[in-house]
Formats: sequence, C-alpha cells, structure tokens
Amino acid sequence: MIKFNFDVNDNNEIINYKNRGMTLEKEINDSNDYYLENSIALIYKKATPINIVKCQNNKIIEAYFESKSTTDYNGLYKGKYLDFEAKSTNSKTSFPLKNIKDNQVLHAKRVILHGGISFFIIEFALLNKYFILPSKSLFEFIKNNSTSSIPLSYFLKNAYEIKRGFMPPLDYLNVLKLHLDNF
Amino acid sequence: MIKFNFDVNDNNEIINYKNRGMTLEKEINDSNDYYLENSIALIYKKATPINIVKCQNNKIIEAYFESKSTTDYNGLYKGKYLDFEAKSTNSKTSFPLKNIKDNQVLHAKRVILHGGISFFIIEFALLNKYFILPSKSLFEFIKNNSTSSIPLSYFLKNAYEIKRGFMPPLDYLNVLKLHLDNF
Repeated sequence: MIKFNFDVNDNNEIINYKNRGMTLEKEINDSNDYYLENSIALIYKKATPINIVKCQNNKIIEAYFESKSTTDYNGLYKGKYLDFEAKSTNSKTSFPLKNIKDNQVLHAKRVILHGGISFFIIEFALLNKYFILPSKSLFEFIKNNSTSSIPLSYFLKNAYEIKRGFMPPLDYLNVLKLHLDNF
Repeated sequence: MIKFNFDVNDNNEIINYKNRGMTLEKEINDSNDYYLENSIALIYKKATPINIVKCQNNKIIEAYFESKSTTDYNGLYKGKYLDFEAKSTNSKTSFPLKNIKDNQVLHAKRVILHGGISFFIIEFALLNKYFILPSKSLFEFIKNNSTSSIPLSYFLKNAYEIKRGFMPPLDYLNVLKLHLDNF
C-alpha cells in the first residue's frame, strides 16, 4: 500500500504534508514575532537542549540532542504566564495521544499548580483546523476515557478553534483571551 | 604581571575563582531543582541556542553557539512570570555594566511592559555577597549615572541581599516574595 504524503489544496496546488509539522511551528513562531513586534506578548520557543561532548575553539564537533523535559513554548501575556506545546496530526478523525509525552503532561500539571495558563495547540493538518485545547480538558479526557486518541468531536466541544489568518498567521492569543477563565 | 585566579577562604582552602561563574549558575540551578521538587516554583534555565550545520544520524558533527537574545532564566512563581539573568563579578567595590548586554536590557524592559517580574541576581564573588537587583533599579541607575559600573553602595540601598544556605543554596525566592511590589 502506498502512503500519500501530499494532497491538493483549493487552488489545485500540491501540498506536501511531510513538512506540516514544520509549518505549524513556523506559523506559531511568525505569530510570536508579530506579538513581540507589536507589544502584544512575549512568547518564545524554548531552544532544544543539546549535550555537547567535544568543541574545537568555537565549533562544536560532537554533540547529541537531549530530550526536552518540558514543553515547546512559554512566555508572558497581560501579566500571565503561558506555557504550551504544539502538535500536528494527519488524522481526519482524532488526535493520537501518543503525540503527547508523559513528561509534558507532568509539566502541564505543574504549570496549572503554580497558577499558569497551560494548553496545547493541535493542528488537524488534512482538515486545515487548529484548536487550543486547555490542559485541563486534556486531563479530563484522559481521566474519563481509555481510548488512545481524542476524537475531533471532543475538540469541537472542549477546545477553541483558531482560524488561520495572514498576519499573524495563527492568532491564538486572540482566541485565548476570550476564554482565559477556563484555563 | 601574574593575574591570580585563586584566593583562600576562611578555612585557608584555595578557591579557584575561574570557576566562580559556573558556581553561581550551579547554585541557582540547584535552588531551582529544590523549588521544583518541593512544589514552590517552576523555574528553568533556558537552553543555549545552537545553530546546527551538519548531522550524522543523531550525532551533531558541526554546530555553533548562537547568542541568546534574552536572559538566562524564566519561570512561574505563585502565578507570576519571573525572568532574570545571573552575573558574577570579582570586583569588591562595584559591578561593571559591561556584563549586561543591550539585548538583555531590552528584554527586561519588555518583561516589565507585559506585567512580569524582571531582575538580576548579582554575585560579588570575593565578598561572598549576592543581591537581587530589580531591573527597574538598574534602569534608574543607568538613567541617572554615566559611570560604567554600579557601586556596591547602590546595591546595599536598592537591591535585596540573598544569604547563602545549605538547601536551597541560594534561596532567592524567599527574598523576592517579601518585595514583589517593588518589581
């Protein structure tokens, strides 16, 4: 069976879905740049930790990626601490929970414990849909269900949809600010 | 002229001051581990951003350090966003401002603008003294003075001293919490 990694969009252009993960990251990074430049918020992607073994002068010649113990992004918005992870799925019907690591769940719980705003941005790439899923809603789902993925219907009821735009490409703060009390 | 990088402490043990910067970092990291494990706060050192040029499988074989555009640490304490930089000096009389980069000053201003708590932890290594200097007090000094370093007397008046302890080694949150209104 051949697995297709591409599709066509409304303009009959081929979209390569293999790069979709990168695209979501770029959309968020560009949005964060916009927020920074327009004094809306201060949100950064955390650098990937790297274990450096050997250096020659200023050049690193042996190093390895280390696994992140937390999430991808954190920052500051209207005096609030924000912390989130972004994930993309090619499924059209549900989001596989295996995309979220145990240490990310633990970190999200800690953020809530200390009074921060914790959530996940989930992209259904083939549906061109984006959601803000509050971490509390994720925990609620895991507690009450034994399935290995969250159906789209759960997102439609318990998450907040973000519409794509031009600039910022993914104005998630504009959605978040309407629902801050639910985080 | 020989430049001495060591000194003796009260027990006549030799202290190598070359590693002092590392020591301050370790003291803060150990304190942050303590805060995490005891559910006091969630504060992380930001990973150094690295520009990766070449990889072989999972091994990085060519990469370079990138300059950090912000500060060393950020996190969450009692619902507040905290952001700070740690610096050590061997001077016994003043802290040289050249230790603080322009982009760190800009970042600190942005943190305050968005409602976060911004400060510097400054160690006078040879005096065994540590201070929390609110970024606002740093800006105030720069605005009103044209000198290239901040005298110790300014710290004694405008910063908050942190006493070293056993665990956590540098309980800066215990000092910070008494003065949150001044940040």
